[in-house]
Amino acid sequence: MYYQPSAQASTEPLQYHLYVPRPPYKRRLPPHIREPADFFLETDLHLNLLQKAEAMVQTVHDYSVPDTVSSYHSLHFLGVDEAMGSVLGQHVSQYRATSSDNGMSYLLLRLSGLILGPTQSLKLFQKFTRISAPGVINGYEAFTTQAFGDHSVVFVYDFYPVGQSFWMLPQLSISYMLNAKDESDLWLYICQVLAILRAVHKQKLAARVVSGSMILVDFQKRLRLNGLGIPDVLDPLSADSVQKAQADDFRALADLVFALVLKGLPRSDDDRNAALDSMKAVFSSELIKVVMALRGADEEPKLDDIVRLCGTRFIDVLEYQMNCTDAMERGLMTEVENDRLVRLLCKLNYLIQRPEFANDDNWSAQGTNYLIVLFHDYVFQQVDETGKPVIDLGHVLRCLNKLDVGVDESIMLVSRDERSCVIVTYAKIKELVDNAFNQLVRESAKVPLH
Amino acid sequence: MYYQPSAQASTEPLQYHLYVPRPPYKRRLPPHIREPADFFLETDLHLNLLQKAEAMVQTVHDYSVPDTVSSYHSLHFLGVDEAMGSVLGQHVSQYRATSSDNGMSYLLLRLSGLILGPTQSLKLFQKFTRISAPGVINGYEAFTTQAFGDHSVVFVYDFYPVGQSFWMLPQLSISYMLNAKDESDLWLYICQVLAILRAVHKQKLAARVVSGSMILVDFQKRLRLNGLGIPDVLDPLSADSVQKAQADDFRALADLVFALVLKGLPRSDDDRNAALDSMKAVFSSELIKVVMALRGADEEPKLDDIVRLCGTRFIDVLEYQMNCTDAMERGLMTEVENDRLVRLLCKLNYLIQRPEFANDDNWSAQGTNYLIVLFHDYVFQQVDETGKPVIDLGHVLRCLNKLDVGVDESIMLVSRDERSCVIVTYAKIKELVDNAFNQLVRESAKVPLH
Repeated sequence: MYYQPSAQASTEPLQYHLYVPRPPYKRRLPPHIREPADFFLETDLHLNLLQKAEAMVQTVHDYSVPDTVSSYHSLHFLGVDEAMGSVLGQHVSQYRATSSDNGMSYLLLRLSGLILGPTQSLKLFQKFTRISAPGVINGYEAFTTQAFGDHSVVFVYDFYPVGQSFWMLPQLSISYMLNAKDESDLWLYICQVLAILRAVHKQKLAARVVSGSMILVDFQKRLRLNGLGIPDVLDPLSADSVQKAQADDFRALADLVFALVLKGLPRSDDDRNAALDSMKAVFSSELIKVVMALRGADEEPKLDDIVRLCGTRFIDVLEYQMNCTDAMERGLMTEVENDRLVRLLCKLNYLIQRPEFANDDNWSAQGTNYLIVLFHDYVFQQVDETGKPVIDLGHVLRCLNKLDVGVDESIMLVSRDERSCVIVTYAKIKELVDNAFNQLVRESAKVPLH
Repeated sequence: MYYQPSAQASTEPLQYHLYVPRPPYKRRLPPHIREPADFFLETDLHLNLLQKAEAMVQTVHDYSVPDTVSSYHSLHFLGVDEAMGSVLGQHVSQYRATSSDNGMSYLLLRLSGLILGPTQSLKLFQKFTRISAPGVINGYEAFTTQAFGDHSVVFVYDFYPVGQSFWMLPQLSISYMLNAKDESDLWLYICQVLAILRAVHKQKLAARVVSGSMILVDFQKRLRLNGLGIPDVLDPLSADSVQKAQADDFRALADLVFALVLKGLPRSDDDRNAALDSMKAVFSSELIKVVMALRGADEEPKLDDIVRLCGTRFIDVLEYQMNCTDAMERGLMTEVENDRLVRLLCKLNYLIQRPEFANDDNWSAQGTNYLIVLFHDYVFQQVDETGKPVIDLGHVLRCLNKLDVGVDESIMLVSRDERSCVIVTYAKIKELVDNAFNQLVRESAKVPLH
């Protein structure tokens, strides 16, 4: 059908029903330049989300894993983590599993071939499940099981898809030379681990897993610490050794920084001194001071002192994080309207062309519901004055959004033979669609007569 | 058509094509409890996004505003801001306008009835446009105009919809008594303003607008400072008075904190002392120390010292911000799949039921494209064995996602008269849909013959 571009359309401000423009974007390009991010989700954010989605549901048919372990099912074997294993001194396998309690995905860390001794207790893990901080991967429970065919201890954590370990940072590749540009990243890492350690130490616990193998690097350089609490189960600390273990947490963080310079953990104090010396040539004196305080060669490292040394660098990290939030919100603004449209389109598609309606008076060319069919034509089957099809996503979105709102604007619908036409408001069509769809849902829910 | 629940479906892991489960959520409820946030965008986040979207496009037919001002069009009068006016000592009106350069929305702050004197220069505004910080509302340009029918000076900033001014915080209502629970909010506000001031002072400038009327409070307690640079245009600072103005910025922040206690700005040092005394009873000594340092009664306030006094409180603010990012990412995960589906559904709807295709062999019951029609039936027109319609959004999403990916899974399509059936893969249907749609787009782009 050819619809004259209608004059009524202008009675409603058109853009109201269209996708809205973006929230402010800290960048102003010359008018003729457009970037993909002006129209879509920023590429790396989109890719990250898709990869995460894929990792959440990826399954391999694997008969070597049990169907269920405790209250978890749909186990997916992620691999043997040798790096983590060597940190914990155990054989560690990772699984993604779904909880029967709530259908969410969790990470199972399985320590295989392990029978707990008389001094070891899973109860100690409980304390660590109470830690709540954005940089800590929450632990939930620990249990022993023979479901894998051996004596295993399983620790349950939140599952974060696609996290790389700290060891896979680009700065750690042998050929990479740390330079002054990396300083902001170093501050990001240090401040984040400090935040994690504060959350742990506040509970009068020591992390004991500040290691490159236990730190996941998520999108936008977010660090998340995995495996908290496992060392305490394997090797419980006496009350007076907690403080020393806390100091060792800071030293482990210093070693991580040194590892970035040395491309591997330092093995001796000589290594540490060498790393520190080569850092002095590249980085600010503030960073050197903080790393020295973390290392605590002269006095025990203390959180308050170290944070004070970081000073305004925490503002940098905070601002970085705020920019991340803003980027996410920008992305969300562009995507949030779509789920409404998906549902509306599905509704319409359920109603159009149903064979059951063929003999229904309401859907005949004289029936009221026929307007829905005509509206569908109006949205999707327009042709221009030369008879060419009009493919205009803007028109579709505009019409659908107006339909969803049910505005009072009138449109003229024309039958396919162009012999009759009806003037009707979006509000009326919305009412018809809702009634017809509800009718259909009632039909589908009817208990059949036998 | 009634389709037997197919056995082939299980050859592809079903959930892969479904909406994916949520990323970890720092909360574990008993299995029988579900919250709305388990299924949809969290309500306040969704509402915030919708309100922002509405504010971005809201228009009122208003003949008192000019059609264009400089390179901005579609001006929308937001109101006269008397609070801001009294801070700047001018009559201030706010407009939202669209730039002809890039189609983005900007905020125009119009100072009306103002002719710049010989010592005043818009060039001074330039320096402030270079400040880039997440808490600063970017300024872009300033110009004089007579488009409003008088002599006006217009300052152009990023437009942030739905921000409330600081004065509208719930803590400022007369009946509200500040209590210990507000301390974390106070730290949030103080640390954010400190971050803003650092960004400004780093450029050797003073903000001079740290006032409740110039601070927008956005979603999730994000502060954004508006109107930076206007005081420098109205009343330029001499080089040696910048430092004093910077110290005054900190004092203004202290006054904002006092205002929360006094429910209004302090008018004298007695007011400030009284506010400080009543704060001592409620808040931690760290907060009191920071506020005293900001006030700088004894010595000039300095950023480094104040940040050092904040100490680990910056970690709290950082963690709060990280949680905000995580919440946004969770929301984005649920929404990101939908835009793909909207586009795919539109494609399908363009192809189904086109009258032009009525005489096209490809679309006849023997033609290849007829499979697209049958597929549409398969997705939307299923009935169960008793003939009741099947309304199953899960089935629709599964089919559409498989179609979008073009998986190798085969399905059996049945004609409406149930006399013929075809076994075809999603990959084949995807190919047909793509070809048919591209054909349609080519048609629509054809130059008509005359």
